[in-house]
Amino acid sequence: MNKSDVVKLILGERLYYLPNHLSANAFAPTNIALCKYWGKRDQELNLPVTSSLSISLGNKGATTEVSITEQTQDIALLNGEPVNLFSNFGKRLIAFLDLFRAERALHFKIDTQTTIPLAAGLASSACGFAALVLALNKLFHWQLDAQHLSILARLGSGSACRSIWSGFVEWNRGIDADGMDSYGSIIPEVWPELCVGLLIINRNEKNISSREAMQRTIDTSVLYPLWPEKVNHDLSAVKKAIHEKDFLLLGKTAESNALTMHGIMLSAWPPISYFLPETVAAMQKIWELRQQGVALYFTQDAGPNLKLLFLSSDAELVKSHFSSLEIISPFGV
Amino acid sequence: MNKSDVVKLILGERLYYLPNHLSANAFAPTNIALCKYWGKRDQELNLPVTSSLSISLGNKGATTEVSITEQTQDIALLNGEPVNLFSNFGKRLIAFLDLFRAERALHFKIDTQTTIPLAAGLASSACGFAALVLALNKLFHWQLDAQHLSILARLGSGSACRSIWSGFVEWNRGIDADGMDSYGSIIPEVWPELCVGLLIINRNEKNISSREAMQRTIDTSVLYPLWPEKVNHDLSAVKKAIHEKDFLLLGKTAESNALTMHGIMLSAWPPISYFLPETVAAMQKIWELRQQGVALYFTQDAGPNLKLLFLSSDAELVKSHFSSLEIISPFGV
Repeated sequence: MNKSDVVKLILGERLYYLPNHLSANAFAPTNIALCKYWGKRDQELNLPVTSSLSISLGNKGATTEVSITEQTQDIALLNGEPVNLFSNFGKRLIAFLDLFRAERALHFKIDTQTTIPLAAGLASSACGFAALVLALNKLFHWQLDAQHLSILARLGSGSACRSIWSGFVEWNRGIDADGMDSYGSIIPEVWPELCVGLLIINRNEKNISSREAMQRTIDTSVLYPLWPEKVNHDLSAVKKAIHEKDFLLLGKTAESNALTMHGIMLSAWPPISYFLPETVAAMQKIWELRQQGVALYFTQDAGPNLKLLFLSSDAELVKSHFSSLEIISPFGV
Repeated sequence: MNKSDVVKLILGERLYYLPNHLSANAFAPTNIALCKYWGKRDQELNLPVTSSLSISLGNKGATTEVSITEQTQDIALLNGEPVNLFSNFGKRLIAFLDLFRAERALHFKIDTQTTIPLAAGLASSACGFAALVLALNKLFHWQLDAQHLSILARLGSGSACRSIWSGFVEWNRGIDADGMDSYGSIIPEVWPELCVGLLIINRNEKNISSREAMQRTIDTSVLYPLWPEKVNHDLSAVKKAIHEKDFLLLGKTAESNALTMHGIMLSAWPPISYFLPETVAAMQKIWELRQQGVALYFTQDAGPNLKLLFLSSDAELVKSHFSSLEIISPFGV
């Protein structure tokens, strides 16, 4: 089964709807996984080996305006800059838009503004594809429910399926070959005191994409077979922590989950390391503060930047140690 | 079974021999594991979970002079400085010497000179305990064979059992409860072109001992159960590489083995990291050089320093990139 089959399954005759507006726009938040998605069981459909769980970052994300253009090809702008349609990202975007043309000579203009650094492990492709799907849904007036929007977003980028929602989101891995049971669902809990601090260590693009790194990990790491077990354990713990507002359990589990993922990557060949010297220095500082009694944890994705986890009561203290920290309250307090 | 039982088993009536000389001295080389020893199946006897394989570093190691003193307590000097006998290391040394007193009022003076930094993952306790056992063997004229000397050294520090030999050494884990089948044996191969470069990043003592780190890893890492499988695979590969003088296989296997060990440690809780910012910077430099075609690999032990692996034909090139590198030819060429 390929992406096009899934799109037909979800949209049916709506695939042939004409645009309802000249343009439509939508926002989707980026999301930070507390239990990571690392490894696909289906490369084409971005179906994951394990479930995962994230928190969406409020107003940090992507706003995308989609319109139909009279031009003979698509146009894409990212923060005002034209996207090279022959780059890897450009080709990926075009291939995604192809899914919705239904062989018609439709061309799109995609204008995306992000409020986060691109491709530095800050899930910019996640919010980008989610915003695009939400905007297309408006443009064509498909009126899809969140579950189907989540599946469409997943076809663009796996973790995009979690960016359809705010707050805590669980992406259930699903077991179906067509992935119709693999989408993000909201966990209806609010935790106003919870803070996420973005510690930007490097804004450059990463030197290995998460797609490639995942596949190399599965193909070559002897440790990967224990990853699903780790995730299952951590998913239960994070859900318990969210339900009981047990911050120490949340922080510890998220940090351990991330370090285990990075540890497994180190055992791949060639080795995969998203650690920069400054990443390691920041980790040591966090561990020292924790030894002094500060309830401060971190998580790290496929990039050198860290995302700090703490409660609002410690925000001032944490900020005093990491002056460049951008503090986000996912629940908007 | 405790250490004292093993000593009695090995020495028998020789345990009561009087010193044959006023003093005796011996040298033992430090050793760098190409397949690491990480995890004990018996804490008392330092019996390992897996076998391991090392290379001894020529004249880098410890020279120890042991004598009987008239004083009412032991005296220990390390590079001319008195050892605090109430420190962890001091207590460990006294407890080791207790094994050979056989309840007599014998007191030892231990004078050790090392040619390597102490307790920074450069196996100083390995060569220290090996040199001590070799010196005691001379002092008491026990005339033990290498196998028994290796077992006695292991009672002081696990990896010391490999420092009884020069060249490549395999420590077979053994299966016996008393550890009489767990000792180092030489692999009779010579590889004159092989170089080990010591990249000293930090000479300070590590903040977590390998003993404690091992135990925490076994107790808390979900990844540890796959470590024995990794070691078995890597041991075969390293032995094949040594036999066939296949340097790329040797380098790749040793680096992957070390990174897997450190990756597993990251998944412990609290996380264990021997990475300093400079460690990560050096790794990146090595990976860049390798991408440029240089046959350069590294290994890392329970400390921030790296040990670079390369052939003598690349020594000059490697030195030009790491000016502080101390280059060792284990086979003395």
